[in-house]
Amino acid sequence: MSKPSAVVVDTAKSPQARLHPVPVDAVTLTDKFWEPRRIINREKTLPSQYKHLETTGRLNNFRRVAGTFDGPFEGIYFNDSDVYKWLEAAAWELACGPNKALQAMVDEAIELIADAQQADGYLNTYFMFENAAERWSNLKDKHELYCAGHLIQAAVAHYRATDSEKLLTVARRFANCICATFGPKSQNKREETDGHEEIEMALVELYRATGDERYLKQAQFFIEVRGRGTIGGSNYHQDHEPLREQKRMTGHAVRHVYFCAGGADLVTENGDETMRAALHRLWQNMVHRQMYITGGIGSRYEGEAFGRDFELPNERAYTETCAAIGSVMWNWRMLLLEADAHFADVMELALYNGVMSGISLDGESYFYQNPLFDDGTHRREPWFGCACCPPNIARLLAQLPGYFYAVSDEGIWTNFYAQSTARITLPSGGTVELKQRTKYPFDGDIEIEISALDGVPADCEWTLFLRAPAWCSSFHKPKINGKSADVSKPKTGGVNYLSLRRVWEQGDVVSLSFSMPVRRTEAHPYVAGTNTRVALMRGPLVYCLEGADHRGYDLRDFVLSNRARVECDDRPFLLGGVTVLTSSLECCPLDTDYNDMLYFNQHSRPRKCAPQHVEMIAIPYYAWANRTAGQMQVWIRTR
Amino acid sequence: MSKPSAVVVDTAKSPQARLHPVPVDAVTLTDKFWEPRRIINREKTLPSQYKHLETTGRLNNFRRVAGTFDGPFEGIYFNDSDVYKWLEAAAWELACGPNKALQAMVDEAIELIADAQQADGYLNTYFMFENAAERWSNLKDKHELYCAGHLIQAAVAHYRATDSEKLLTVARRFANCICATFGPKSQNKREETDGHEEIEMALVELYRATGDERYLKQAQFFIEVRGRGTIGGSNYHQDHEPLREQKRMTGHAVRHVYFCAGGADLVTENGDETMRAALHRLWQNMVHRQMYITGGIGSRYEGEAFGRDFELPNERAYTETCAAIGSVMWNWRMLLLEADAHFADVMELALYNGVMSGISLDGESYFYQNPLFDDGTHRREPWFGCACCPPNIARLLAQLPGYFYAVSDEGIWTNFYAQSTARITLPSGGTVELKQRTKYPFDGDIEIEISALDGVPADCEWTLFLRAPAWCSSFHKPKINGKSADVSKPKTGGVNYLSLRRVWEQGDVVSLSFSMPVRRTEAHPYVAGTNTRVALMRGPLVYCLEGADHRGYDLRDFVLSNRARVECDDRPFLLGGVTVLTSSLECCPLDTDYNDMLYFNQHSRPRKCAPQHVEMIAIPYYAWANRTAGQMQVWIRTR
Repeated sequence: MSKPSAVVVDTAKSPQARLHPVPVDAVTLTDKFWEPRRIINREKTLPSQYKHLETTGRLNNFRRVAGTFDGPFEGIYFNDSDVYKWLEAAAWELACGPNKALQAMVDEAIELIADAQQADGYLNTYFMFENAAERWSNLKDKHELYCAGHLIQAAVAHYRATDSEKLLTVARRFANCICATFGPKSQNKREETDGHEEIEMALVELYRATGDERYLKQAQFFIEVRGRGTIGGSNYHQDHEPLREQKRMTGHAVRHVYFCAGGADLVTENGDETMRAALHRLWQNMVHRQMYITGGIGSRYEGEAFGRDFELPNERAYTETCAAIGSVMWNWRMLLLEADAHFADVMELALYNGVMSGISLDGESYFYQNPLFDDGTHRREPWFGCACCPPNIARLLAQLPGYFYAVSDEGIWTNFYAQSTARITLPSGGTVELKQRTKYPFDGDIEIEISALDGVPADCEWTLFLRAPAWCSSFHKPKINGKSADVSKPKTGGVNYLSLRRVWEQGDVVSLSFSMPVRRTEAHPYVAGTNTRVALMRGPLVYCLEGADHRGYDLRDFVLSNRARVECDDRPFLLGGVTVLTSSLECCPLDTDYNDMLYFNQHSRPRKCAPQHVEMIAIPYYAWANRTAGQMQVWIRTR
Repeated sequence: MSKPSAVVVDTAKSPQARLHPVPVDAVTLTDKFWEPRRIINREKTLPSQYKHLETTGRLNNFRRVAGTFDGPFEGIYFNDSDVYKWLEAAAWELACGPNKALQAMVDEAIELIADAQQADGYLNTYFMFENAAERWSNLKDKHELYCAGHLIQAAVAHYRATDSEKLLTVARRFANCICATFGPKSQNKREETDGHEEIEMALVELYRATGDERYLKQAQFFIEVRGRGTIGGSNYHQDHEPLREQKRMTGHAVRHVYFCAGGADLVTENGDETMRAALHRLWQNMVHRQMYITGGIGSRYEGEAFGRDFELPNERAYTETCAAIGSVMWNWRMLLLEADAHFADVMELALYNGVMSGISLDGESYFYQNPLFDDGTHRREPWFGCACCPPNIARLLAQLPGYFYAVSDEGIWTNFYAQSTARITLPSGGTVELKQRTKYPFDGDIEIEISALDGVPADCEWTLFLRAPAWCSSFHKPKINGKSADVSKPKTGGVNYLSLRRVWEQGDVVSLSFSMPVRRTEAHPYVAGTNTRVALMRGPLVYCLEGADHRGYDLRDFVLSNRARVECDDRPFLLGGVTVLTSSLECCPLDTDYNDMLYFNQHSRPRKCAPQHVEMIAIPYYAWANRTAGQMQVWIRTR
């Protein structure tokens, strides 16, 4: 049975949410794309990450504070957050099913954390002992509230997953310490915030988990004090203007999307219309001006930051894995708030491309940056000194089943497609079992069977909402039991959701067919690096060329003619099972032709050799860098 | 009369140099491009920079050490170098003519420096007093030898310009201290070098100025110890492999070109063929893989560094002004070493474009970065906390006349063209006066008159070498006194120099005509940001579009058709007098057409509106950002 509390974002009572999430364990993925990744996450990724937490001193830092380990603080001052993020991931995995080994690690970590907490609730292993005097002394740079936020999120996850209040109690004590310290000057508190957002989302979730309104107010305080220069006023920290007035995504990318996610949480609770409008404005800027075709964001290496509008270099794309994950988190909250499929579209794009490129197929090495062109030197690593990305991917994969459906008074919302079984409780009562049968994301045919109706009144009419993905420009009307079905518009929200309302019966089967032609995708001409280039897409997947499939060539020499046919080919044994795209490329070895000339008069442009024809094999972008090192290219020259 | 010692790089006795420089004051520029800039340099730039040195505490740091000022060290630990660079600039200006005001500043600065020197010769105002214990403690980061190098260069310049040994004595004492400290372990010395190159060039120059071979050996030691990991082994510091083995320009751009300039100085003295080959290899990599069309280098913001080959983003071009200046310095040394005009071509390109963009037309504000596209927010500033660029431009402009000619046993080499008078002493005896009459760089017609021959034997045959610029693909044979002249090949070196050998007579006039059509220049297709774009060039100048000339338009909406005629138009009152390029551009407002779409299916590409025709005015790149803030674009879309 689903535990009603085990949700990623509990908006069950949030007055402004149009959609309410389903528990993480309400959905069991049985597909060939996500299920293997979830198994690897549980069996390989989380255990191997726990080892890294141990060997890099991250756990010893807690033992040291608790007095059971003698040695210096190890690593970076915000390393506690990696433990908390790992714990959140492990908690969501435990929500989906028992796992003795993982349970033991979780219990050990929680024990260490609880033992390390100070009497006044404060907890940060760097700012104790020799650095105790530095507590809260450098909010701008030192991530104390950021770490606190991740502790709180881990605690809420663990509480929802296990009903245990052990870590939640730790988190509440720390949250109370924070509430007593930070707030309006009029209350004799410190009117400041943290240089790295995270505490905002965490406190709203803590409010949802506990019902204690202090935490919601504290989140609101932290959101509203930002932009007033208390931490220096830089846009790197989003401190240059209040959220309500912001017009563009700017500064450190992870920080800004975390901030917007916190803002969306707040709006979901209090319905602040000015802030809501600001979030939509910022979203428009991100999605239509600053997002890579992979869903990656934050193009600049310098400051791990958003750049100017249309500044999207491919080779030097920073596109931190954590930033794409933060975008998923923000878009998820916007989806719940607005019931608008555009937010799910961005989530899906990021999930299948810019996020999953961040982890190897074996689940044990990671990208911090996710470029769209590479010469073959950028390879995944098993861990980082600043290890924010690895546990962030782990917690996303652990939460993933919770994203597939949502509910509203009208019925059940299907956000994403994958072979799966779901048991979803209708707000009006009763539980519906839905079986999805599909080869998504490699095929757009989907069957959804109402395989059980437990306790749903016999005459109960409810709506099954089906997201129409933005990548699909044409599809047939859905069928119910083989007959074309009437599609109505949802009452509120529901942009780009197909709505099927009726008295559903056990055994009813809905068929969808989202056609998946190969899409030659172009970018706005202001994106300088993509002029006269195409990216190949199919369904939600972005494709790329990789050296391993084109040995002996320089990928930059390839031209994909507009007239060349591009075909699909299933390769069940390649890269965990993929559909590749094939075609015939024209190849002129430019570096030979151009004979060292970097610049030349148009009239003396080198004559190209007669092009060779080379068989193209394009693989999904997420799967690159899992074979021999070699070039990778998303945007292919065309003519 | 020319002071024979007043040269930029004294290779007079260097055994390997094919060319020998002429004194800075041998050439008097009387043209409309450089002369006004040189006057501004003398009258505005140098006095205003001296004020900045004073108000930012840079001079007080010396007074403090000398005991005449009470206060803390101000600014960055390498700020002494700005004083030295300013002093070098001022010294070269004094070499060209008396200037009481400047003389007073120079004398004051030298007094301060001399008073600050420690008894053991050491001199660095940061590493004295409270930081004295840190002396030489962090060679990798703290620039002590870099500052020493600039002191030495300033001293050599001042000595050559004025014959005064006051600063040279200070420099020698410090150099002796350095020689006693650093060297092979076998001599019980520290086998290490500095994180920022500069000392290498400086010590070779000090050897040339003093004849003391210790300094040459010390320079060789510093060059050869780099690449052996003594300062961490990073390519940022060029410490990843020895210069002899290096294949690409990498890491911090200014550091690497300064290093190569030092390497070229060393090869000029010792003829090391392996190092010479490495320098040629590195030069090929820089010029054919990593140089902007403006002559700017170092494309990455991160680390102010060279990127990968062909990584040349336009909007995010870092292209530090100092890096372009460093390229001029290196190329000048290569030109003297090889007598190959390719090096002069790169110097000319950088001088007229990527260097001169670094300073405003009024000579009192500066660019640190020199992008090739901008939205109008990048504006010059009057000074920087890290103020390396302003005095670097000043010393380059002060040295400039010394670059125009060189001499060899065969005769006189004309490297650059500008209206000017030169008095050049032939190695074989006698002095030749050359008058250049030309409107270069806006016109390619040049007359050079042998206006005087003082003491040249009547039957003395000598060669006048004339550089044929690489930008000119066709030109008529030069004429002598109106008659087509026979051009011969120089005996050694002389690639792309026209050589006219004869017994010259007073009044002989050589006429050259380098045709200056507008060149639509393209870049290698591997440079992603320039595909289907052209840059307009004419003569040595790169042109750009600027918002001020196209009000109400977004420059990114412009397309310059391949069929559109581009005309030249002299505008004597615009931007100090320029020839602009005019044409008719097609304009489709893309952001409206594309209606917010960042990515779209090729088949549903937005239909463009019928293009408007807009009058194009392209100005020389160096002159941008001298009017109202607005966009700037070098690479224009074409079709």
